[in-house]
Amino acid sequence: MTSPFLGEFLGTMTLIVLGDGVVAGALLKRSKGEGAGWIAITAGWAFGVLAGIFVATATGSPDAHLNPAVTVAGAVGSGDFSKLWVYIPAQMLGAFAGAAIVWLHYLPHWAATPEPDLKLACFCTGPAIRDAKANWTSEIIATFFLILTISALVTNTLGASGAIPRGVAPYMVGMLVWGIGLSLGGTTGYAINPARDLGPRIAHAVLPIAGKGSSDWGYALVPVGGPVIGAVLAGLLVRALGI
Amino acid sequence: MTSPFLGEFLGTMTLIVLGDGVVAGALLKRSKGEGAGWIAITAGWAFGVLAGIFVATATGSPDAHLNPAVTVAGAVGSGDFSKLWVYIPAQMLGAFAGAAIVWLHYLPHWAATPEPDLKLACFCTGPAIRDAKANWTSEIIATFFLILTISALVTNTLGASGAIPRGVAPYMVGMLVWGIGLSLGGTTGYAINPARDLGPRIAHAVLPIAGKGSSDWGYALVPVGGPVIGAVLAGLLVRALGI
Amino acid sequence: MTSPFLGEFLGTMTLIVLGDGVVAGALLKRSKGEGAGWIAITAGWAFGVLAGIFVATATGSPDAHLNPAVTVAGAVGSGDFSKLWVYIPAQMLGAFAGAAIVWLHYLPHWAATPEPDLKLACFCTGPAIRDAKANWTSEIIATFFLILTISALVTNTLGASGAIPRGVAPYMVGMLVWGIGLSLGGTTGYAINPARDLGPRIAHAVLPIAGKGSSDWGYALVPVGGPVIGAVLAGLLVRALGI
Amino acid sequence: MTSPFLGEFLGTMTLIVLGDGVVAGALLKRSKGEGAGWIAITAGWAFGVLAGIFVATATGSPDAHLNPAVTVAGAVGSGDFSKLWVYIPAQMLGAFAGAAIVWLHYLPHWAATPEPDLKLACFCTGPAIRDAKANWTSEIIATFFLILTISALVTNTLGASGAIPRGVAPYMVGMLVWGIGLSLGGTTGYAINPARDLGPRIAHAVLPIAGKGSSDWGYALVPVGGPVIGAVLAGLLVRALGI
Repeated sequence: MTSPFLGEFLGTMTLIVLGDGVVAGALLKRSKGEGAGWIAITAGWAFGVLAGIFVATATGSPDAHLNPAVTVAGAVGSGDFSKLWVYIPAQMLGAFAGAAIVWLHYLPHWAATPEPDLKLACFCTGPAIRDAKANWTSEIIATFFLILTISALVTNTLGASGAIPRGVAPYMVGMLVWGIGLSLGGTTGYAINPARDLGPRIAHAVLPIAGKGSSDWGYALVPVGGPVIGAVLAGLLVRALGI
Repeated sequence: MTSPFLGEFLGTMTLIVLGDGVVAGALLKRSKGEGAGWIAITAGWAFGVLAGIFVATATGSPDAHLNPAVTVAGAVGSGDFSKLWVYIPAQMLGAFAGAAIVWLHYLPHWAATPEPDLKLACFCTGPAIRDAKANWTSEIIATFFLILTISALVTNTLGASGAIPRGVAPYMVGMLVWGIGLSLGGTTGYAINPARDLGPRIAHAVLPIAGKGSSDWGYALVPVGGPVIGAVLAGLLVRALGI
Repeated sequence: MTSPFLGEFLGTMTLIVLGDGVVAGALLKRSKGEGAGWIAITAGWAFGVLAGIFVATATGSPDAHLNPAVTVAGAVGSGDFSKLWVYIPAQMLGAFAGAAIVWLHYLPHWAATPEPDLKLACFCTGPAIRDAKANWTSEIIATFFLILTISALVTNTLGASGAIPRGVAPYMVGMLVWGIGLSLGGTTGYAINPARDLGPRIAHAVLPIAGKGSSDWGYALVPVGGPVIGAVLAGLLVRALGI
Repeated sequence: MTSPFLGEFLGTMTLIVLGDGVVAGALLKRSKGEGAGWIAITAGWAFGVLAGIFVATATGSPDAHLNPAVTVAGAVGSGDFSKLWVYIPAQMLGAFAGAAIVWLHYLPHWAATPEPDLKLACFCTGPAIRDAKANWTSEIIATFFLILTISALVTNTLGASGAIPRGVAPYMVGMLVWGIGLSLGGTTGYAINPARDLGPRIAHAVLPIAGKGSSDWGYALVPVGGPVIGAVLAGLLVRALGI
């Protein structure tokens, strides 16, 4: 019953359950994790990546992209664009489903939290300082380094000698995402993944969240377009370098 | 002298010594770790899982379940229920023993802490917002993802090529538990393990803890029943997917 | 030029440089790490163990005990006491040297810190609540679990199949120490190592530390004797179980 | 197209993007990571080392030094100084480029942050207590332990039996750097790498950073000279011990 579509769907769902979940746990009122802070939020996303890769790999997608930007970068690098039409819809649906599960998991906490902005932040990203050019730049830069470092890791993983044991690679990807979040997430909340932002933003718009405010559609293009541009640039560099 | 019973007993005891221990260290007055916060509490439970798996494996239980929910999920997945009658009593007794050791370890701190609620939290879980339907749902969801991600990890671990070195798997289980705690623990304190909650709750009821209050038996069914339901659901999915 | 004596000396020195160093960084006034808290202190000790094991292994002591309690437990387990006379003096001298290096490293911060108690805490342990029986019990329990979990890990490491890659074992020991510190360190500051406490306490007594107070010799027996008792008890259990 | 020069350039650039990035994220006003604290800052640098090593290895520098002090120590240890003329310019240029990327990434946050000192700290190091002799000593000690522990790790990595899988070594180097930062970084902010400090200090001097102050050139020699001295001392010890 497993398939690449199912793997990308369940893997991305798991990523968002843990990723949006840690934000909800740190921001929503009366959560036991309230105020856990930046180290906890970035750690939760990193472990979400780790868990999502395990789930995707086991349920049919050995690529375990979980992220349209990674899929695009792979297509740019290899010249084979056929995976896009399967992976990206699966990732978007998985991210939507994951956000809906987080909403259900923290159900009584939405009404307990007065601030609509905090509630939106449990679903999708928003800029620390709203400045279109700077926000696009941040998402491009952060995604560029995500793709560059993962590509470098994969090269190490597949190297003939001295290679990382392949099964340890998911953990290393998680640690790279922890690092990128800690270091480059301060500006826009590091979407670095169009599905991670758009799927949950749609969930925010359609779910009956107690006391919710705007889904901030005016910003929604940045965390989709920025990661795609960053991924294409990194994919071209990776291709040019032959790594 | 080692046996599956002994392994599950000692492994679960170790899990609870470190898990309940980190809560005590973070909550009890005059502890050097007082106020260490959510990242420390979730880390302590993760390392408790790591340590417990090592101990269980070395003392006779290569399965190292340490958790009736994992044992139930395995039985649902395999159709073989014979381990339940050995493992679950060992896990319950081990959890009770671990909680008693934590009580002894922090002995002068119980009298130094006025709040009965904080003392109960060093033994068993309680809801952030008391709402029966929501609390059941939270335990079901968190345990579902615990079982799904561990099953996916085990599949990766046993894969023919590119496998995680098997001995690294205990660490990965610990990291998954860290992630689940950070992300899904904010609502009910993530029992996700009937023994982890019931054994220490009984210890709280019977031990002469200075200034203790109620053992909150009205809530005790949720952290037992919720994890079992979540485990059965995940076990059925894992079985259906053939992972 | 390498030897078991040199390995234990340099490894324990490295352990204490990072371990006492992180306490100094978190407690001394005007340090950039001031107020870093319990998660940082316990992490620093864990990485100190990791670094110390690498150094000891590379410079002549493949055992990399770094801790008389570990050496005693090994002797109890194997019945061979010959290593005690080499390892323990090396560990004590290494711990003294490491503490002296920390004093030098943070030199201007001693005068900047008014509290003698905080300065002593950068060298050796002290009880959160002074209660002889409870403090002895805490050190016995924490060291018992240190030895039990490390023994279990070593058993896993040496297992014929599914073993942890041996070189990863130092990292796992570090993570176990992180867990024990987080969970059981709140009561006495977890000496769990006679050399870690006594060597730096002597350093505190003899070094010209600006504005230092008492070296608290009245407490000095607990963090030496407690760990030895805990180690003997765990060593006997490990031997009885044949793990 | 890959080469040792390119590898050291891109690897060091990645190190500084994540390293200076985490400082900017923790210190600049209105960053989502503002106030993340010492554990987050030291973690970000550790993951920067991990990412930088992956990138350097994949793009032509299997040595992945990323640090003139490591290159110098290797030359002292081996007697072969030929790599210095290639690696060190690449590291300096990479560090400059990385700092420029961090400036661009956090662009609107510079004007939002009034304190020139905080802005300088996002580029290069400065002393907690300005005391030339003590600051030199701190950088020498911290770099000495950096080189000693990495050398010990490499020895373990290459050992015939029981070796760390070579590909896991980058992670272990990252963890050692996390430990050194936590424990020895409190005094001078742990340059322990001349390129990490000088490249970004030049970037601070030449980039049009909103409201910037002095680049503190009076201190600039310490984080260059101290690490070189520490590296030479450690290199001599490593050579003498034959590890």
